[in-house]
Amino acid sequence: MSVADRVRHSEGAVRLRAKWVLPIESPPIENGEVVIEDGRITQVGKQLTPTNASHIDFGLSALMPGFVNVHAHLEYTVMRGLLEDVAFFTWIRTLTTLKTRLSFDDWVASATFGAAEMLAGGITTVADACDAGASLSALLVSGQRGIVFREVFGIDREPPIENILAALKRKIADMEEQIERHHAEERLSVGVSPHAPYTVSAPLFGELAAYANSKGYRQCVHVGESPAEVALIERGTGAFAEMYAARGIDWTTPGVSPVRYVSDTGAFDAPTLAVHVVHADKTDAELLASKNVAVAHCPKSNGKLGAGFAPVKALLKAGVTVGLGTDSVASNNSADMFEEMRSAVFTARAREQNPDALTARDALYMATLGGAKALGLDAQIGSLRHGKRADLCVVRLDGLHLTPTADDNPVAALVYAARASDVALTFVDGRVLYETGTYTMLDIARLRPAVAQIRARLFREWQKEAKRGA
Amino acid sequence: MSVADRVRHSEGAVRLRAKWVLPIESPPIENGEVVIEDGRITQVGKQLTPTNASHIDFGLSALMPGFVNVHAHLEYTVMRGLLEDVAFFTWIRTLTTLKTRLSFDDWVASATFGAAEMLAGGITTVADACDAGASLSALLVSGQRGIVFREVFGIDREPPIENILAALKRKIADMEEQIERHHAEERLSVGVSPHAPYTVSAPLFGELAAYANSKGYRQCVHVGESPAEVALIERGTGAFAEMYAARGIDWTTPGVSPVRYVSDTGAFDAPTLAVHVVHADKTDAELLASKNVAVAHCPKSNGKLGAGFAPVKALLKAGVTVGLGTDSVASNNSADMFEEMRSAVFTARAREQNPDALTARDALYMATLGGAKALGLDAQIGSLRHGKRADLCVVRLDGLHLTPTADDNPVAALVYAARASDVALTFVDGRVLYETGTYTMLDIARLRPAVAQIRARLFREWQKEAKRGA
Repeated sequence: MSVADRVRHSEGAVRLRAKWVLPIESPPIENGEVVIEDGRITQVGKQLTPTNASHIDFGLSALMPGFVNVHAHLEYTVMRGLLEDVAFFTWIRTLTTLKTRLSFDDWVASATFGAAEMLAGGITTVADACDAGASLSALLVSGQRGIVFREVFGIDREPPIENILAALKRKIADMEEQIERHHAEERLSVGVSPHAPYTVSAPLFGELAAYANSKGYRQCVHVGESPAEVALIERGTGAFAEMYAARGIDWTTPGVSPVRYVSDTGAFDAPTLAVHVVHADKTDAELLASKNVAVAHCPKSNGKLGAGFAPVKALLKAGVTVGLGTDSVASNNSADMFEEMRSAVFTARAREQNPDALTARDALYMATLGGAKALGLDAQIGSLRHGKRADLCVVRLDGLHLTPTADDNPVAALVYAARASDVALTFVDGRVLYETGTYTMLDIARLRPAVAQIRARLFREWQKEAKRGA
Repeated sequence: MSVADRVRHSEGAVRLRAKWVLPIESPPIENGEVVIEDGRITQVGKQLTPTNASHIDFGLSALMPGFVNVHAHLEYTVMRGLLEDVAFFTWIRTLTTLKTRLSFDDWVASATFGAAEMLAGGITTVADACDAGASLSALLVSGQRGIVFREVFGIDREPPIENILAALKRKIADMEEQIERHHAEERLSVGVSPHAPYTVSAPLFGELAAYANSKGYRQCVHVGESPAEVALIERGTGAFAEMYAARGIDWTTPGVSPVRYVSDTGAFDAPTLAVHVVHADKTDAELLASKNVAVAHCPKSNGKLGAGFAPVKALLKAGVTVGLGTDSVASNNSADMFEEMRSAVFTARAREQNPDALTARDALYMATLGGAKALGLDAQIGSLRHGKRADLCVVRLDGLHLTPTADDNPVAALVYAARASDVALTFVDGRVLYETGTYTMLDIARLRPAVAQIRARLFREWQKEAKRGA
């Protein structure tokens, strides 16, 4: 019988046992146990008092909180590997063009495939920045927890801000209605995502924050990502400035850092997750901390797009809450939180030329409880603790690459060498959603050809685009 | 019947077919074929002329040259995850102490386990820097191709250089005898590894190069790795300088870069592979190019140990041949060439803040033909070409993380998202050595408990050491 069936058919509590249990808030427990009941964690420890709970032993595995992926664009999954090895500006422009070629159903298939990949990698919570609204459809069926931040763009005088706001309100109302209809209020919520300083005007930033605050929504903003963005905001030069000029957009350089500029618009007056924050100094870090702005650190995406190395150590030192994000798989190219953890450690240490700059424990924290805090969900998830939701993953530790590390150092095994493919099971709210290649909620056999078909169409369009451009 | 059996029982040539064939020297071939016979590649192409060759279709997979791992320390495999999150200097000192606790048989078990992990990740050639000589024993049984560089240390006045050289000659003679006895001259050879500028004196560097030259051996030298090494060589300060003072070692700072210093000793007068080269500028890069010194780039190790980011773009621009190395799994912690490829791309791009700094193709080249050139083996391996040895790997491309990339962009799939765990088969000299979890030459079921037992002993010793230190 599968673990999913055993959990489903168990009456009352289920005892889960593994060689290593990682509560995150306290050191790893060897031969530990976690008891779950009614979707919640009721006990965590070693040699727990025997209960009548049915008992499942995962052997040489790690039982840990599911990963919290604080930044994704599930909708772009179908574009993975499509626009490779082009400059950031070309990349984002072509992406914008190709986006218009897909139907809503296409976006849903793409986003759902992305959600499936994340489940298979132990990701139980996704904070998604979505344009079409399809990410919500994906998460409604995948069973994951998440915040769906609806993206807003508006840098020009047209359309007027009130129109943008009205459209956003309609979209958000529609998303909330869907969440209610699916009785998914406990696991899904909506947010607002003013896209970035180069796509959202200062007044729009301010209005969106006021709206988010009035409704209790969180925000997500890309800020301080690329050198091109810095050039625009700090000096009024570079690729974005040229695009502004070509489109007739007025732009007076504020002459400050992207973080300071976005803050000055009032954007950070609502609870905000700042994504990337590669180009930021100590003063920016302190500003973010003072505004309670959390950071989504996406080290692989920052590398692939040539953005730079985020100052993670300075952010943590200033007291900023940092979570880890995969970003879109169109710019990564996989949703593997293990790789994000070690990329965070390796790039921070090389950047500081100091092996103490970031530890494996720091990275594991950022990928779980740090991410939960960054999303305001730490009362519900992010660590194994009595009363929290039973969002868990089981990672097999018997791979050659984890041997003999897993005998005595589970944190090093997980952070430095484990892979998404080592994940055996993923639970959300105590339900098994993924178990070694099979999904309880998703029909992967149907999704695969759908995604292939959409991709073939996109590939043809992109080849045509490229020919026109050449 | 397994592929290994089908290949073994085939009379004459075998035709291998896959969705993507990657010759490396030319673009990927869709629905390509490779014909192998008598351990060599005889044909590569699309829709080859039908032959009587028995035919194996790998479906949605990549058929490519096996990876060339230009830098490893197989012997340290058992130390994976043991000495984590300590400064470079403490790390290398503790490693040196623990090394004395293991028997030769322990080292062989450790190295063989490492060779098994590499085979499972598609690595067909290993350039190993070895201290005890156990790496040779490992490669003799694993069936892989390789160069075993025997490490030499000697920074003090004692023992005298002639004694060091005499001991080295005995060790090398013993290794060559073993290779002959196993009739492995075609796939294994020996080399000399003067360890590093902080462990080898200038006169010893010179003598070793003269010896290597006289015998036609290649050399491997760690150079320009850590900030501590730079401090010693350029300024006579830092942790290594303090160690020298404590041990009464005379040291007059040459006041030049580590690359220049090592070059000035005459070390580069024999064919040399310089390992790491993190701290090097344009002038150093040009010096390396002028001396025909190749570089082993180990981006993950450089990150984990806080060394820094190697100037890969500058090295390539100067005309230096660059290969990729995993380094020891004690400082990495897995032998995954896919991760090394993307780490090379991501760190180069972030370092230069330019997405054009390094492409996926560049990384794939470095991991195969670049590595082969760096080891002087490019006439035999590194690409799929008529007459080269049939050292191949088959990478499954059906994982969610490779979908839909593999439909149209196999290079992006392999470099940006594939994992060592996607490798289905590894061939050396036309023989299958690894096939989805099973080895034709190695007894992994016997190796595992041996490694666990050694590790348990080492762990106890290290805990005792740590207590003594505290």
